[in-house]
Amino acid sequence: MDVVAQVRNFLEPKSVAVIGTSRTPIRAGNLTYDVLPNLISSGYRGKIYPIHPSVGEVHGLRAYATVAAVPESIDLAVINLPRDLIPGAVEECVKKGINAIIIVAQAFADAGDDEGNRLQRQIDDAIRGKKTRIVGPNTLGTANAYAKFSSAFAETHMEKIPVGFICQTGAFFLGLAGLKLMGKAIDLGNGSDIHFSDGLEYFEQDADIRVIGLHIEGIKDAARFLKVVHRVSCKKPVVALKTGRTERAAQAAQSHTGSLSGEDEVWDAALRQAGVIRVEEIEELGDTLRAFYILPPMKGRGVGIISASGGFGVMSVDACERFGLEAVKFSPATTVRLQALYPSWQKAANPVDIAPSLMMGKKTPFFEALMTTAEALLDDPRIDAVLGTLDGSDLSLIDLYSKVAEKVTTAHPDKPLVFYLYGSPVAAEAKGALEAGIRSMVFSSPYRAVRALGHLAHYSEFRSACDSSPT
Amino acid sequence: MDVVAQVRNFLEPKSVAVIGTSRTPIRAGNLTYDVLPNLISSGYRGKIYPIHPSVGEVHGLRAYATVAAVPESIDLAVINLPRDLIPGAVEECVKKGINAIIIVAQAFADAGDDEGNRLQRQIDDAIRGKKTRIVGPNTLGTANAYAKFSSAFAETHMEKIPVGFICQTGAFFLGLAGLKLMGKAIDLGNGSDIHFSDGLEYFEQDADIRVIGLHIEGIKDAARFLKVVHRVSCKKPVVALKTGRTERAAQAAQSHTGSLSGEDEVWDAALRQAGVIRVEEIEELGDTLRAFYILPPMKGRGVGIISASGGFGVMSVDACERFGLEAVKFSPATTVRLQALYPSWQKAANPVDIAPSLMMGKKTPFFEALMTTAEALLDDPRIDAVLGTLDGSDLSLIDLYSKVAEKVTTAHPDKPLVFYLYGSPVAAEAKGALEAGIRSMVFSSPYRAVRALGHLAHYSEFRSACDSSPT
Repeated sequence: MDVVAQVRNFLEPKSVAVIGTSRTPIRAGNLTYDVLPNLISSGYRGKIYPIHPSVGEVHGLRAYATVAAVPESIDLAVINLPRDLIPGAVEECVKKGINAIIIVAQAFADAGDDEGNRLQRQIDDAIRGKKTRIVGPNTLGTANAYAKFSSAFAETHMEKIPVGFICQTGAFFLGLAGLKLMGKAIDLGNGSDIHFSDGLEYFEQDADIRVIGLHIEGIKDAARFLKVVHRVSCKKPVVALKTGRTERAAQAAQSHTGSLSGEDEVWDAALRQAGVIRVEEIEELGDTLRAFYILPPMKGRGVGIISASGGFGVMSVDACERFGLEAVKFSPATTVRLQALYPSWQKAANPVDIAPSLMMGKKTPFFEALMTTAEALLDDPRIDAVLGTLDGSDLSLIDLYSKVAEKVTTAHPDKPLVFYLYGSPVAAEAKGALEAGIRSMVFSSPYRAVRALGHLAHYSEFRSACDSSPT
Repeated sequence: MDVVAQVRNFLEPKSVAVIGTSRTPIRAGNLTYDVLPNLISSGYRGKIYPIHPSVGEVHGLRAYATVAAVPESIDLAVINLPRDLIPGAVEECVKKGINAIIIVAQAFADAGDDEGNRLQRQIDDAIRGKKTRIVGPNTLGTANAYAKFSSAFAETHMEKIPVGFICQTGAFFLGLAGLKLMGKAIDLGNGSDIHFSDGLEYFEQDADIRVIGLHIEGIKDAARFLKVVHRVSCKKPVVALKTGRTERAAQAAQSHTGSLSGEDEVWDAALRQAGVIRVEEIEELGDTLRAFYILPPMKGRGVGIISASGGFGVMSVDACERFGLEAVKFSPATTVRLQALYPSWQKAANPVDIAPSLMMGKKTPFFEALMTTAEALLDDPRIDAVLGTLDGSDLSLIDLYSKVAEKVTTAHPDKPLVFYLYGSPVAAEAKGALEAGIRSMVFSSPYRAVRALGHLAHYSEFRSACDSSPT
């Protein structure tokens, strides 16, 4: 069985056994942490087999004393027992012919005590030479919005977005306010068996997935990983948040998932060489994943900036230089087109400020000024993406922006158009309204908008190199 | 009249003349841009004198043909006329004895054309040797939430927060979604007369103001500015977003406000030496201003991290190293206190993961684990601030956090306690709920939380140096 088929059992199981469900589950506030009730309420359509030693029915489902007692075959077992009971449960699953096991409990390599290491060796021994693969221990397991499946003991926040996510903390499964990170996900936890390379090979061939996100604390087989991630990057963008950057943080990662983090500069160079888009923190991760699945590729480094506030125009130029893009000089044709809109004293230069056309003698109505400017910039061969920093303090303006965006993105589907909206408190609401109808994105600052564009541009360069030299 | 009294006319005027109000104001979408209606609707309690050549009443207020025709004295004139009419209007204001003038129109030094420069020279000549000071041209003017006053031609988004803000783009007056930036503000625009040093001297003595924010495109009198800002920084934190970092951006700033930006490295060194907290972008600006007025000072660089997700603990340590803080080793007493809470296999080290106390045998209930951990960390003399990265996906948890935060911040009012909450979609709502009752802050990522703490710690070090050596 190849890796793709092995991982498929974890993400698209047709039947799941849940071994261990608590009558006194862990609680914090009103929340209850338990696998089985969350799996039932997620809307999963496959078969669920609760395994319980003494009870015939759990949460309205028929329970079985052991996996061996289940009459049908089982694609995936989720073992939700204390660490001492895990090796025995794994052996029973292997005996039953279950090829995929998720181990929830922690306190194995992450604890670093003799007992944890001994138990881990027992687990390793139980699957050696068998077809069975393990996700975990110390994990929330897997989640798949397309199949309404989640093995997590907490409510999983996922949407049918084309992002495959591989992480080493289950906290991502709970969702990070406002950041859309996962359509399908694997929490490797300690990564005792299934690791990044396996997940990458699966998402490489998954037609639902157009972008892959990684949260890496450590890598087990760096040689295989770098080879696989380079190959995958030549097909789909791979965005990575590599944590444990320093010695101190690496120690923390060691006691979190038992991972060895390694030298940060080496990581940086190796990931870059493999075409991986490295991000520094979670908001950048969220912005970048979305940019890759919402926006078209950015084919060069030229940015055209439309501003209704000169100040944000200046900040956008700063951000371009910060993230390796260029607020290019307009081509002569563009300058001529724009100059017709504006009072004579205004230079039609990048960033182009549309406010003067309003202020001075109402030479050009706002809607017309914005439409013509957006068209002129997107027509300019020097410009590969357009950023508008505009007043978002009234929803009537969003209507105008939406009309402009719809028209110009239809005419130029090959160039990203993005926005930063200032103005309170409507801007937050406006973001949703503006993004709804068009293939565009609204960012929380010019800095974040340009940072995401920078990743698009760098990835396009990497991809061109892939195309010219086979990997 | 000293500078403070001069600036007071702009921020606390008892009477305002508005010269120019349009029967066909500038419109975009449903928004109308005009000074007088916005001033009236802001709730300002002072006297308003509309100046209009031919109409006896405007927006329900008695209008006067000229400022000379107004029978009382006038603290502030807002000139809202096309550029050609400005010099004449300024002369009339000077003749009337008005000591403060805001000039809204653009197209002076920012246009850089001969006509703009000529008009600016006429304005300069009109006030030379007089008591009259000018804010602008090319500005929204001033705003003061404490006096419900705004000269802006758009709705001003301000709150009674102790932040004095001096900027070079009026877009800040419209509010930036979710960022609280100003209680009182001056938009310098082109800064032809009133400049950063004047505003700083005013906010230096303003008892309502505890933190000062600057958005700088360029400085006119660098020697005076650096002297003043150093003196002010020794009394109140000054946070600066200096834009126009590169040559390209500096060109844009030149055509925005006619400012000369200067070499970025020189700026960096000079600002640091003067004790100014420099930030890179607007979200950092908002986070940092809030941190300074909400949180107590951070007296050293030691951070204690409480995590319910090991992964975010690791990210927090990364952020500490990134921003010059240290995830310190706990003192022996702290380790002993914590170890009692946890299963034997867990090392009670920084970052401390409270999840195991839940997972393994429910040794300690969640509330008790969190409370004891927070108390132990804040008691630790090595720790100067505590960051909690916790599940915010249910409001019942926020109740628990609020109770913990209220108790421990009362016992330790001298150390910042901050949070990052993951979990969707409740986390966004939880932020408000948790911040409501306590002197704490919730950030959108561990990275942003630690970045703000880093600014607090660096400022405390600067302040100590001030105290030991008079400036």
